[in-house]
Amino acid sequence: MTDRALLTPVEARALFRDGLQVPTPGFSAGYAQANLITLPKEDAFDFLIFAQRNPKPCPLLGVLEPGETSSDLLIGGDIRTDIPGYRVFRDGVLTEERAEVTDLWRDDLVSFIIGCSFTFETALLDNGVPVAHIEQGRNVPMYRTSIPTTPAGKFHGPMVVSMRPIPANQVADAVRITSRYPSVHGAPVHVGDPAAIGIDDLAHPDFGDAVDISPGTVPVFWACGVTPQSVVMSSKPELAITHAPGYMLVTDARDLLYQVP
Amino acid sequence: MTDRALLTPVEARALFRDGLQVPTPGFSAGYAQANLITLPKEDAFDFLIFAQRNPKPCPLLGVLEPGETSSDLLIGGDIRTDIPGYRVFRDGVLTEERAEVTDLWRDDLVSFIIGCSFTFETALLDNGVPVAHIEQGRNVPMYRTSIPTTPAGKFHGPMVVSMRPIPANQVADAVRITSRYPSVHGAPVHVGDPAAIGIDDLAHPDFGDAVDISPGTVPVFWACGVTPQSVVMSSKPELAITHAPGYMLVTDARDLLYQVP
Repeated sequence: MTDRALLTPVEARALFRDGLQVPTPGFSAGYAQANLITLPKEDAFDFLIFAQRNPKPCPLLGVLEPGETSSDLLIGGDIRTDIPGYRVFRDGVLTEERAEVTDLWRDDLVSFIIGCSFTFETALLDNGVPVAHIEQGRNVPMYRTSIPTTPAGKFHGPMVVSMRPIPANQVADAVRITSRYPSVHGAPVHVGDPAAIGIDDLAHPDFGDAVDISPGTVPVFWACGVTPQSVVMSSKPELAITHAPGYMLVTDARDLLYQVP
Repeated sequence: MTDRALLTPVEARALFRDGLQVPTPGFSAGYAQANLITLPKEDAFDFLIFAQRNPKPCPLLGVLEPGETSSDLLIGGDIRTDIPGYRVFRDGVLTEERAEVTDLWRDDLVSFIIGCSFTFETALLDNGVPVAHIEQGRNVPMYRTSIPTTPAGKFHGPMVVSMRPIPANQVADAVRITSRYPSVHGAPVHVGDPAAIGIDDLAHPDFGDAVDISPGTVPVFWACGVTPQSVVMSSKPELAITHAPGYMLVTDARDLLYQVP
């Protein structure tokens, strides 16, 4: 455990609010981390249906009502400032990366808080399953795939996955452990054979950092909450505000809250 | 197993479309059953958020887009005719019970298909846990409780639960088995002590039929998809169309599709 693992979510969010811009793997061990996508209300209905139809990449942990900037997932916090990195998309084009988005706020913006696989990494580590990007001090590697999502209204596009190289003799454990957390992407969507889901080169992820892959490991792929960003690029809503991939909302929800038997 | 258990979902829905009006416990064993609530689009956004905030009573299995009348949950079917009983609420008041609602249909109506606990009854029976209302050939008893739901927009109101009397030595099994089906209400919300959740008399359910309660059993309560009907009564949307309690949509989805480890 590093110091970052021992920070409370309130302490971690305060650091980010004060300007620390780093990826969040390993922060606040035992607390759920989450993806953000904020959309104008005119697009929010279609996105809610999109999330319901695509629960593996888009498990909703919370939806703020139009204009709301806080919730019980970030007690006393502000969704516009408490994430270590934001992205702004206009008509589907990434136009800015920022430390906060307060000046872009509007009363019609609806924020979706989506589960993140960093949440089950504590359970993997506690069960003796190594997590390469944490060991290597990097962001998780994420890849745009050839796996289509189920469209809803204007929203459509390919699924994004995160990848963890797992020792072959622990792949079954990784499946068993993560399948107990369906609200934070759950069981893997694909094991081995990156080419079969349109990934040409694991060394060049579309988001995050490449990790060193040890011999005897198998690449295991989980649905990723960056999928809404690839969907925004395809679907071109007027405005979308998201977290920067790997720069997550550290919530006040215990990861055990999302564990099923 | 009775004949009703052996009907395919397509066969069961055809009987209902042709006018059979009976409760659906025990129909099409191994297939998921579902609750329906259909609302005008102006209320559908608030209801989607309500469902997300209340996953125990309102687990969404599917959402049809405005005006849609079918989906992959009822292949070749029609949501307006294929349920054995419908209810129509206007401004929160139950105004009609009908066999079909085709003539009430509008292009702005959004249908929500919500998980039903009848789905896990096959798993209970397969595991040797008796289900009293099936043994007694009755509808499941349902009760309005003092448990509040989490409000969203205009929607608020008390949770409705279904009750099954479970032999004391099998309560743990019933919890273990049903907790594997979070999409169809999952683990019980309450075990024993009806008065603690505002139920005065188990012999007089608010919906469905009373069941004979054997000595040595404990009343076990699961969140119920009739909750949206109690919420409609409290929240008074202009129009809401629902199934009649216990008269469910028999879907083409295998119940195992909703099983988690």
